[in-house]
Amino acid sequence: MDLLTPRIFLTFPLPDVCLTGSMSAVKLEECRQHIRAQLDSVVDFWLKYSHDTVHGGFFTCIGKDGNIYDELKYVWLQGRQVWMYCRLYRTVDRFRKPEILKAAKAGGAFLRKFARVSSSSGQWKCAFCLTRDGKAVKVQRSIFSECFYVMAMDELSRTFYQKNRSEQMMEQLIHWVRVDGSGLGRPQLPGDVPTNSMAVPMMLLCLVQQLSEDRRGVEQKYAELGSWCVQQILQHVQRDGAAILENVSADGSELPGCLGRLQNPGHALEAGWFLLQYAAERGDEQIQTTAIQKFVELPYESGWDKAHGGLFYFLDVDGHCPTQLEWSMKLWWPHSEALIALLMAYSQSRKAELLQSFFQVYEYTFSHFPDPAGGEWFGYLTQEGKVALDFKGGPFKGFFHVPRCLYMCERILDDLLASKE
Amino acid sequence: MDLLTPRIFLTFPLPDVCLTGSMSAVKLEECRQHIRAQLDSVVDFWLKYSHDTVHGGFFTCIGKDGNIYDELKYVWLQGRQVWMYCRLYRTVDRFRKPEILKAAKAGGAFLRKFARVSSSSGQWKCAFCLTRDGKAVKVQRSIFSECFYVMAMDELSRTFYQKNRSEQMMEQLIHWVRVDGSGLGRPQLPGDVPTNSMAVPMMLLCLVQQLSEDRRGVEQKYAELGSWCVQQILQHVQRDGAAILENVSADGSELPGCLGRLQNPGHALEAGWFLLQYAAERGDEQIQTTAIQKFVELPYESGWDKAHGGLFYFLDVDGHCPTQLEWSMKLWWPHSEALIALLMAYSQSRKAELLQSFFQVYEYTFSHFPDPAGGEWFGYLTQEGKVALDFKGGPFKGFFHVPRCLYMCERILDDLLASKE
Repeated sequence: MDLLTPRIFLTFPLPDVCLTGSMSAVKLEECRQHIRAQLDSVVDFWLKYSHDTVHGGFFTCIGKDGNIYDELKYVWLQGRQVWMYCRLYRTVDRFRKPEILKAAKAGGAFLRKFARVSSSSGQWKCAFCLTRDGKAVKVQRSIFSECFYVMAMDELSRTFYQKNRSEQMMEQLIHWVRVDGSGLGRPQLPGDVPTNSMAVPMMLLCLVQQLSEDRRGVEQKYAELGSWCVQQILQHVQRDGAAILENVSADGSELPGCLGRLQNPGHALEAGWFLLQYAAERGDEQIQTTAIQKFVELPYESGWDKAHGGLFYFLDVDGHCPTQLEWSMKLWWPHSEALIALLMAYSQSRKAELLQSFFQVYEYTFSHFPDPAGGEWFGYLTQEGKVALDFKGGPFKGFFHVPRCLYMCERILDDLLASKE
Repeated sequence: MDLLTPRIFLTFPLPDVCLTGSMSAVKLEECRQHIRAQLDSVVDFWLKYSHDTVHGGFFTCIGKDGNIYDELKYVWLQGRQVWMYCRLYRTVDRFRKPEILKAAKAGGAFLRKFARVSSSSGQWKCAFCLTRDGKAVKVQRSIFSECFYVMAMDELSRTFYQKNRSEQMMEQLIHWVRVDGSGLGRPQLPGDVPTNSMAVPMMLLCLVQQLSEDRRGVEQKYAELGSWCVQQILQHVQRDGAAILENVSADGSELPGCLGRLQNPGHALEAGWFLLQYAAERGDEQIQTTAIQKFVELPYESGWDKAHGGLFYFLDVDGHCPTQLEWSMKLWWPHSEALIALLMAYSQSRKAELLQSFFQVYEYTFSHFPDPAGGEWFGYLTQEGKVALDFKGGPFKGFFHVPRCLYMCERILDDLLASKE
C-alpha cells in the first residue's frame, strides 16, 4: 500500500457537505482528466530528455525545448528523480514501464557509487553536485543532499526488493540534527544561535513517513522522531497563531531581524500536507485542525498576491521588503505544494472554501506554468506572471515537484470521485 | 594625492577631438552639478541613518524611509563604508567634517575588535556578518570580507595617520590566492577544478592600487602582484576577443557549462576602469586599448537591454537563459560601474561614442534609481525598470557603489571641464 494517499480518507468521520452538487463533481472530473494528461506529458518529457545512458543518473539542466545546457548532476535532483520514478512505477499501473525502472536503477547506482564523499570529520557527507561522470564538485554544509539520498534508496528498495541502503545515512542525519551537527562542517560561531529552520523537521518527517510505510518495526523505531518533528514544525506557528515563520529559535521563540520575520508560503503549505498525512495516519483531529487552519489557510491567504495572482516566494511578516531578490517571483513549486495541500485539506474536512481556494490556485497554475509547445512547466515567473527563466529543468528544478503534485492530486481526486459514485 | 583620478588624465597624448563643441560642455557641466548634488544627498542619508552610536560600525539594512529593518553588520559593507568615509574626508574639501571622521574611526575600531575570527586552520578569517554588538554569525569560504577589511584599514591609516593594520591580512590574502587556499575552508574535491573567477584578481588589483598609492616602497613590493592580477583579468577575454566571461580555468581557457558561459556585464565594466587606471599609471597604451575595447565597449553593448534599457545582471554568452533567478533584473551597481568606466574611457580616449554611451547610462540611471522622496537610490529593479525591492541598504547594498560612482564621476568631470577652460 502507498502511504501517500488512500488511508487519509478513511480515518475521520466526514461532515455531510461533501461535494456541493453535481457541478463540483463535473468540475473535479475535468480536473482529474487534465491532471492525468499533464502527468503523462511531464513523465514523457523527462523520459525523453533527462537520461544519461552513458554514466547513469539524470541531466536536469534542460532548456525550453529539451536541450541539455549543463551536464552537472545535482544530488538533490538525482535522488528526487529516482524516488519519483520508483514511486510511479510501484504504485501507478500505467507507469509500470521497464524504461522507468531501468533509469531509476541506473540513477540509484550512480548515487551509491558517487554521491557520498567522506568529510573532514570522518563522517559521510553527500556532495551537492557532481560532474557528469561522478566527480564531486561541491558539498553543502546542510543535510538535504543526504535526505534525498535516503529517500531514493528507500523507495528503490521497495520497488525492486534490493537491500535497503538508507539506514546508516538516516542514523547519521538524526545524529547531525539532534545530537551534534559539527560533522556538517559549519564552524561554531558565537553569534550563530541555534535555529529551527522549518526545512529540517519537514524533511525528517518526510523521511520518517517514507521509511515507516508498511514496516511495523521501523514505524515504532521512528515514532518518537516523527512526534519530535511535528512539535518542531508546530513551533513555527508564531504571533499568537497569526503567522507561520520560516525560522524560529531552538526553543520556539521568534528570532530578531529579517531571518526571524521571513515567511515562505509555499513551504508552509508543503508542511501543511505533511502534517495532514501525519494526522490522518493517527486519527489526530487536533493536528488536523492546526494543519488546516495554520499551515494551509493562513499561508494561502497571506501568500496570495491580490494584485497579480499567484503565491509570493518570500514575505516579511511585518511588511518590510524581503532581502531575497526573487521574493516577488512566482515559482512553480509553491503552487504545486498549494494544490496538494488545499485538495488534501478539502478531502479531509470537506470545507467548501478549501475547494474554492484549490480552484483558484489551479486556474493560476495551469494558465501560467505549463508550456504546451515545448512540454513540462516553466519554473520561474515575474510577479506579473511573465516567464522570467525559460528552462524546464535547472539546478533546483528537476523531476519532483511537478510530478509529485500531479500524482498526489490525481490520487486524491480518484478517492474523492470514488466516494461520490 | 589621490590615486583614483587626477593622474589618469596626464599620461596620454589626447587626440584633438576633445569635447565636441559647446553643447557637450554645457551638458557635462549640468552633469557635474547634478552628480555633485546627488553625492551630497547620499552622504547625508548615511550620516543620518546608518551610524550605530552605541557599538560603533554601521547599520546597513535601511528601509525606504531610513528605518533600520535589521541590525546585522555585514563586514563587506562595514569595511566599504569606512573606506568611503575616509576617502571623502581625505580628498574632498566639503566632506572634511568631524562627524564623518568620527564615524569612520568608530567603524574601524569595530572591525579591528570583532571582524577577525580564527579559523580551524589557525589562520585569520574575517566573519561575513556580525551581530550588532560584534559576535560572528557567519564566515564565508572566500576572500572578500578580508579584502574590504584591508581596504578600510589602509585608507584609515592614511586619513588620520595611525599605524597601518592591513599588512598581515594582505599577506594572508596573497597566500590564499597564489600559494594555498585551503585555509579558506573549502574542502578539496576532485570535480572542483581550479577556477579564475574575475572577482579575485579584480579585488587584489584594487588592493594593490590602494596600498601602493604614494608609497614608493610598497608600490615596488606589489608591482609583480599587480602585473599578475592584470594578466589574470585579461584571461577573461574569450571567444577570440568577442566576449568577457566571468569564470575561466586556471590556465585561461573556457570552462564547460553555465559557469563557463556566465557573463556579468557590470563586473566586466568595473574591471574595465580598474585596468584603465592601471594603464594610465604606467602609460601603457596596449592595456588601455584592451580595457576600452574589451572591458568597456564589449560588455556595454552585450549587456544593454535593447527592449527596456538598463544593464542585465547576468547573461549566458550562448544565449541560454542564465540559472540565476535575478539575471534580468537591473541593479544599481552595474550602472554605477558603467558610469565610471564609460566616463573614464572617454576622458582617456576622447572617443565621442563613449560619451554618448555614458549619457545613455546616465539617463537610465538617474531616471530609475534615485528616490527623491526618501533619499538615496533604490537598488533592485525588474527588467522593465519597476522598483522590485524598495530598501536603500541591505546585506549587499551599503555606502559604497553609489557614492564611489558619484565621487569618481565628479572628479573626472572636474578634470574634463578644467581642460576646456
